[in-house]
Order: sequence, then structure tokens, then C-alpha cells
Amino acid sequence: MKLVRYGSRGRERPGLIDANGVLRDLSTHVPDIDGAALAPARLAALRRLDPRALPAVSGRPRLGVPVAGVGKIVAAGLNYRAHAAGGHTLPSEPILFLKAPSSLCGARDAVRLPPGATRGDWEVELALVIGRRARRVSPARALEHVAGYCIANDVSERHFQFERGPTWDKGKSCDTFCPLGPWLVTRDEVPDPQALDLWLTLDGETMQAANTADMLFTCAELVACASRFMTLHPGDVLLTGTPPGSGFLRSPARYLCHGDTMRLGIAGLGEQCSRVITLNA
Amino acid sequence: MKLVRYGSRGRERPGLIDANGVLRDLSTHVPDIDGAALAPARLAALRRLDPRALPAVSGRPRLGVPVAGVGKIVAAGLNYRAHAAGGHTLPSEPILFLKAPSSLCGARDAVRLPPGATRGDWEVELALVIGRRARRVSPARALEHVAGYCIANDVSERHFQFERGPTWDKGKSCDTFCPLGPWLVTRDEVPDPQALDLWLTLDGETMQAANTADMLFTCAELVACASRFMTLHPGDVLLTGTPPGSGFLRSPARYLCHGDTMRLGIAGLGEQCSRVITLNA
Repeated sequence: MKLVRYGSRGRERPGLIDANGVLRDLSTHVPDIDGAALAPARLAALRRLDPRALPAVSGRPRLGVPVAGVGKIVAAGLNYRAHAAGGHTLPSEPILFLKAPSSLCGARDAVRLPPGATRGDWEVELALVIGRRARRVSPARALEHVAGYCIANDVSERHFQFERGPTWDKGKSCDTFCPLGPWLVTRDEVPDPQALDLWLTLDGETMQAANTADMLFTCAELVACASRFMTLHPGDVLLTGTPPGSGFLRSPARYLCHGDTMRLGIAGLGEQCSRVITLNA
Repeated sequence: MKLVRYGSRGRERPGLIDANGVLRDLSTHVPDIDGAALAPARLAALRRLDPRALPAVSGRPRLGVPVAGVGKIVAAGLNYRAHAAGGHTLPSEPILFLKAPSSLCGARDAVRLPPGATRGDWEVELALVIGRRARRVSPARALEHVAGYCIANDVSERHFQFERGPTWDKGKSCDTFCPLGPWLVTRDEVPDPQALDLWLTLDGETMQAANTADMLFTCAELVACASRFMTLHPGDVLLTGTPPGSGFLRSPARYLCHGDTMRLGIAGLGEQCSRVITLNA
């Protein structure tokens, strides 16, 4: 299933995209697409519905964050092997950091660079959404705790991230710095999360093009690692790192400008399209 | 008002502590103490209630996290001037980092060090709870966005924080690493948040004793700073940094052991008492 939350910000309703690409309303079957709705039994009940019997939604409503009530976003840094070719020392264990849930926005919402941001940057990433509580799980059992997958853009401001203190958070958690979606694709439709092409273009020019096979730590290993440090709860989101091609590692460096358009996609998970807006003080 | 959430974990009910220290139930007046309940108008309505007319709660129930549905925890690092005497270069702007909301626990709950944790540490801190959305607010208006104050213990594992990657998150966000409470004291009862004694003892021995007057950046400046990077929403929590005396900066260093008891308090905000438990793999 492709699960969505559609409608204006803060008033999203649950829905799904059927096999013909038609948006259908789910609000008589589930109050929202949140951690509770992502429990295996609840997802199985939704899967038993006949999509053709659900009301089709007319028009092209906004698609919001496909999960409501995200408790935390755990993200991995420097998780693609090709970074080694760029002269980076590869980490011996996953690098983990947090993004504030208030940074989430929909897959077609504008990305707003806050006043003073001069080094806005892009990072296409495969995101996992947790459906079952994970606490110190083994890599072998880790994916059983994943409800589904989405595209994420781990938008970053490199000056805020690296030059405004010893932590990355100022540059990772600004509002709209985590477009997620357009939809959550349930795990049964993604047989191998380590075999997905992913890409990002900036104003039509390819900036990132890779495959999740090139991850240093697999999705399962990332879930297992994170769950040793903190319990992952249903509705939590885990970002799995970005392949090479972000702006700050290019030569010369390139950063987001007002009016730029980022398009990004992952095989089977749809596409995002975000326009960049620079906010004035 | 001293607002609490009492009862077993996950089933807490809203309450308040009256002028005589009696716990009284608020559940017929507010569904929970969450971001919505902390809006100025909603708090004013609670304040108009006669506590003597509210049902007294018998026994000594557990006190849970005094705010439900915390969206994010933003924390300040190295924010007390006395750190300068310890040879630290003081930051020119607040150091900010995130703690996962899943690290929250009640003020008398056990602090559980995860398997492999050998350098567990304590940090008594004044916590602010946001009651009105704050986005790029000025220091002069910042405290108008604060609903109230609590004690927090910013429990940390220094090996995870400093030696397991470039970010602090692995050592800051473990489950039970953010005891909060015992209650939320509304802002009207804390006329000057920069004039509060705070202290922490470990097994009866004083480890931290200071006053919030010694903060490098005031509560108002921290709210203003954080709100320039990310919107603060009702129910968000802001930790304001810890005074000297944490274990990893002592000479010799001292870390938490299984069975230790941390007691900590802030003038007017009550006390916490947390027993330390070391979890086995």
C-alpha cells in the first residue's frame, strides 16, 4: 500500500494511492496514519480493504507528512561507501544524530531557508518508518519493526551545522528541513531496501544518483544500532544517510538559492519536488 | 500552579498539587497536561478553579512526565559562567542540541543505564516548557512563550557522547536519560528564573550547587536563540544547561554506578530522586 495524508497543513486526512494512481480516502477506516495505525495487525486490516470501494478524492490536494505524530527522527551520517572515494574516513559504526520532528513537511511543500542561511544543502535519503517498538533488536530481526519506506530530503544548512557550535542540530532541524513522502510504501512492497536507485536533481541537473546497495551500514544494521541506544517507537522515522553529491562536498561547493527546485526520487517510492524559498529577517 | 501527571506509565492523569501539598485530580477539567492545555487561556481557566473543590487523590501515586506529547527537547550546553574557571572557552552563542522525547521519564523513576554504558553522568538543569508557539522571538518577548518551569536531569553517557561518533546524540537520548518534574510550576509563580538555587547530590554527597544567575545565556536568550533555528511549539521543552560538578569534569572523574541515588532540586520547583540501574546485555 501507498499510504498518504492529504489536505492542508494540520488538517490532513488519511488516504491511499490505489494501483491506478487514484487517491482514495481512508478516514472511515482509520483516524490517521500514525504510530498506532502502523502496527502490523492494523496495517493488515487496511490491506484487506478493497481500494475500489473507498471514496476517490477529486482534485490534486496537497500531500502532507505521511505519518502523524512522529516521536523522533534518527538520522545516519556518512553512510555510503562512495564517500570513501572522496577522501573521507569511513566510520566503524553508524554515525547517528537527531532531527526535530518540527522540521517535517510534505513532499511538495516549499523548503524555507531561515534568515541568515547561506549554505542550504540537499540530501536524498531512504527513510524507514517504525511500526513495532524496537529495543536492542538484532540486525536479523530489525526489519520486522519497520512498517514502510519513504523518500526523505535531509535538508541541511552547513554554516549552521558546522560553524555554530560543536553539534549539528542548528543546521539540521530548521522548519521544512525534512520533506517526507509523498507516501509511505508498506514494507511488503519493498522486498529489498538495499537495491533501490535514488537520485536528486537541482533545477534539472543531476546532483545525486546512486543505489542503496552502496550503503555502508544496511537499513537493518541501522535500526539495530539505533535501538541499542534508544527505543524506537511506532511512528518514529529513521533516515539512512545520503549518497555523494551534496552541495558542500562538490568542487566548487554549491548551495541552494531562492527559487531553486529540488526533485528527488527513489525507485518504487515516488518523487518529491520542493521549491526553495529564502526567508528574510 | 504545580501541574502533574500521576499514575502508571502511559496511563497518567492530570492533576495539581495544592497549597497544602495535596495531590488533586484535574481530569474532569482537562484531558491531559499537553501543549494544548498549556495555552495561556487554558492555563488561566485552570487557575480560576478552586483547588479545594477538586477531588483529592489518596496514596502516593507515581508522578510521570509532567507534560504529555513533548514534540522536542532542545538543550543548551556549557551555559554556566563558572565553567570558565574550569579552563573551558565559553561559547559566543548558545550551544544547542536535541534529546529524544523518548528519553523522558518521571522524577522518581529509575534511571536505566543501557548495556555497555560505563560513564553515566548527571546534570541538574532548569527546564522551560513552551506554552505559545515561538518563531524568531526577541529575548524581550521570549518568556511570554513559556508556560512554566521544571527540574530536569540531563543524564548523559560520556563514552557514547564523545567517543562513538562526531555527534552527542548516542549519549544523550537513551531511555530514562531525561527525568522531568516532579511538577510543572507555571510561570506566574517563578518571577525571576535567573535567581534560583539548584543542586544535585549523589548518595548524599553534594555534586552540584549553583544559582541560575550564573547562566551565560539567560532563559530568555536561549528561547530566542533556539526559535531562530526552529519553531518552538507548545509542549516543547528547553533545557538551560548545567552548572559545574558533573562527573566527567571532576578530578578524578566519577560516574554513575548501579544502586546510586541522585537527588536534585531547584528552589520552588521541588525535588527529584532517581535510583540508578545498570542494564545487562
